[in-house]
Amino acid sequence: MPEFLKLTNPEEALNTFLDSVPGSFASERVRTERSLGRVLLNDVVAPTALPPFARTTVDGFAVRASDTFGASAGQPAYLTVVGEVLMGTDSKLQVEQGTAILIHTGGMLPEGADAVVMVEDTQSVTDVELEVLKPVAGGQNVLQRGEDVQPGEVVIQGGTRIRAQEIGGLMALGFTEVEVAETPRVAILSTGDEVVPPSEEPEEGQVRDINSYTLSALVERAGGKPVRYGIIPDNARDLEIIARQAHSEHHMSLITAGSSVSERDITADVIKRLGEPGILVHGIALRPGKPTILSVCNDVPVVGLPGNPVSAVVVAGLFVTPAIRKLQGIRGPEWTSNIHASLQTNVSSVSGREDWLPCRLIVTPDGLEAEPVFGRSNLIFTLVRADGLVRIPAASTGIDAGERVEVRLF
Amino acid sequence: MPEFLKLTNPEEALNTFLDSVPGSFASERVRTERSLGRVLLNDVVAPTALPPFARTTVDGFAVRASDTFGASAGQPAYLTVVGEVLMGTDSKLQVEQGTAILIHTGGMLPEGADAVVMVEDTQSVTDVELEVLKPVAGGQNVLQRGEDVQPGEVVIQGGTRIRAQEIGGLMALGFTEVEVAETPRVAILSTGDEVVPPSEEPEEGQVRDINSYTLSALVERAGGKPVRYGIIPDNARDLEIIARQAHSEHHMSLITAGSSVSERDITADVIKRLGEPGILVHGIALRPGKPTILSVCNDVPVVGLPGNPVSAVVVAGLFVTPAIRKLQGIRGPEWTSNIHASLQTNVSSVSGREDWLPCRLIVTPDGLEAEPVFGRSNLIFTLVRADGLVRIPAASTGIDAGERVEVRLF
Repeated sequence: MPEFLKLTNPEEALNTFLDSVPGSFASERVRTERSLGRVLLNDVVAPTALPPFARTTVDGFAVRASDTFGASAGQPAYLTVVGEVLMGTDSKLQVEQGTAILIHTGGMLPEGADAVVMVEDTQSVTDVELEVLKPVAGGQNVLQRGEDVQPGEVVIQGGTRIRAQEIGGLMALGFTEVEVAETPRVAILSTGDEVVPPSEEPEEGQVRDINSYTLSALVERAGGKPVRYGIIPDNARDLEIIARQAHSEHHMSLITAGSSVSERDITADVIKRLGEPGILVHGIALRPGKPTILSVCNDVPVVGLPGNPVSAVVVAGLFVTPAIRKLQGIRGPEWTSNIHASLQTNVSSVSGREDWLPCRLIVTPDGLEAEPVFGRSNLIFTLVRADGLVRIPAASTGIDAGERVEVRLF
Repeated sequence: MPEFLKLTNPEEALNTFLDSVPGSFASERVRTERSLGRVLLNDVVAPTALPPFARTTVDGFAVRASDTFGASAGQPAYLTVVGEVLMGTDSKLQVEQGTAILIHTGGMLPEGADAVVMVEDTQSVTDVELEVLKPVAGGQNVLQRGEDVQPGEVVIQGGTRIRAQEIGGLMALGFTEVEVAETPRVAILSTGDEVVPPSEEPEEGQVRDINSYTLSALVERAGGKPVRYGIIPDNARDLEIIARQAHSEHHMSLITAGSSVSERDITADVIKRLGEPGILVHGIALRPGKPTILSVCNDVPVVGLPGNPVSAVVVAGLFVTPAIRKLQGIRGPEWTSNIHASLQTNVSSVSGREDWLPCRLIVTPDGLEAEPVFGRSNLIFTLVRADGLVRIPAASTGIDAGERVEVRLF
């Protein structure tokens, strides 16, 4: 009784799925200071130059570089100090041949000057007489106008997730509001006649709902807004009614099926009726996560996740997070960063199937070690005890103790 | 005119600082479903076992393993099916010698049974007559009561940052509310007579405020709540009045000094007057970030950051984020994950000083390359163009093109 005739490999499954997931759907304006983690919709074009004027990068004296040529401690160049540039002002002063103007880091270079002598390389004879002990080259210690950004330049590309520095760059250019992709609303449906809400005391044979909440947290972290539909009885009719409603109201649906074959069959049947093209992938060469369903029905992605909590978390990381990225219009690669460690024990794996192994990181005198947290795949505390997952590629039949592995943090 | 007589190395600076930063200060109860990213205050002790009853991990028939010993396709064991376990119920049925009960994945093992035969390994002769084609061992395909968690066990340690799986684990145990550390409120003060709010059109010599906003975003990401005090005029009196107020009302203060020496001196003088022990580190063997001030005044950390935006971001990552972690009561190590890439060009560095170099990641046919984004350290778009930072250790005088480096993502 083979449930799946053909298992798809995880990479192919992801590509097939993402090809049908639509890009960003709508936008909204938000205050830039509240935009951390949101996704910029359009290219940002600089309206002005940055810096907007030539600035000194040191404390010192604005000069003509040619006035300092050949200066040394033994043979200083003598200049007359004609004023000071106050911070935040255009001094209106001019540096002419033989003169210098006192200036502080960040101050606006006065007209006529083309370099700044550091205060450490000068000596004041009187308030107006200055000895320059070291020559400066033209442009030295000066940030030129537009050195960071030229007017008209694309400074941030549309499809960029906003980090602290993008907020800073937008503010520097005066963009106090910004157009970002709307947050995708992701419906979360759990099925299972044995599942009760966490606030209830389970009776014999019942367990509390875990998946609705772990998936909500993962959706939130990926940039989506989770909308929980609660626990749905294990029959096709109830599931279809609620799945249709969720599907029509949100940008994506996640259905965690019960874990029995019959419950999974119900989920697949319901998804098939939600729209075209429907199920794209059913069954993945992956552990945990084999019975995953990837579908797009009338432009809305619907993912059927395995019922056991560990599988649901792994599958969400591999398929749901990238789909939420695409729904937000993120372009460009997602860099996944890893911690390198040496595997503590031998781990075997079946060739042809990709495995994701929960591991705990341990600091040892020999460096970081990854200790596999063995546990049957339906035990949530297996993941609580783990720091991340180690991927065992499909081509491998296992990893030997002591081998270097990459741990992908949760 | 050396500004700092002795520079502290970054690791020593961090340790000295963190030793004086207080641990978590107060707690609040939040709904578990809203607790993602918060820090658990106390150990979580399991009130009940998980799973709360023995469950099957497959679809099949609950049996006595001894009844199947020696069974094969040629010589099946014959059992009488006496009922079905419905999901979410205690069937009240008993498996006696020679009998079997139909059961679905996740169902509660009936009394008398000690194993489950997979449906694939059986054949139904009539509704009640079952052929078992393969033997099972005692405990096979069964999750025992308490296999994930025993009552009384510490399942999550206090000081843990809550991830998706902790939320799932808490829900599984019925904890729908949880006691977490209060979010540290971090005051952000910018100084600089040349700085104007982003909403204003700068006049000649003025620039818009960047640091208040990049630092707010970084504080938020580290788990703190930023409170911006705006731009403070560059004089000791105004700065002291506002710094004292911020210091008395919040759990941490960040002061980005202007970039000139005199502005930095003002910041240091004001910090000295805020309380004991006061300044712990002033001047770090770090680029960017040399003029950083690390202090704790009457149990409230105060960090003086360099005025230029890139330095401020680097210093915040190295010193502010770990302090906010400690203020939240996080125990255990912080795993920093990196992307490995090969450096695209030679980069030189001064021995004795740790450098952090902004780099962009580029996918090439030979693998991932890290391209240094050269730019003077006060240009914010240097960081917008970069994906992360490469650390050049103090002992090094540079890194050659082609060498493997670790890029720490922003």
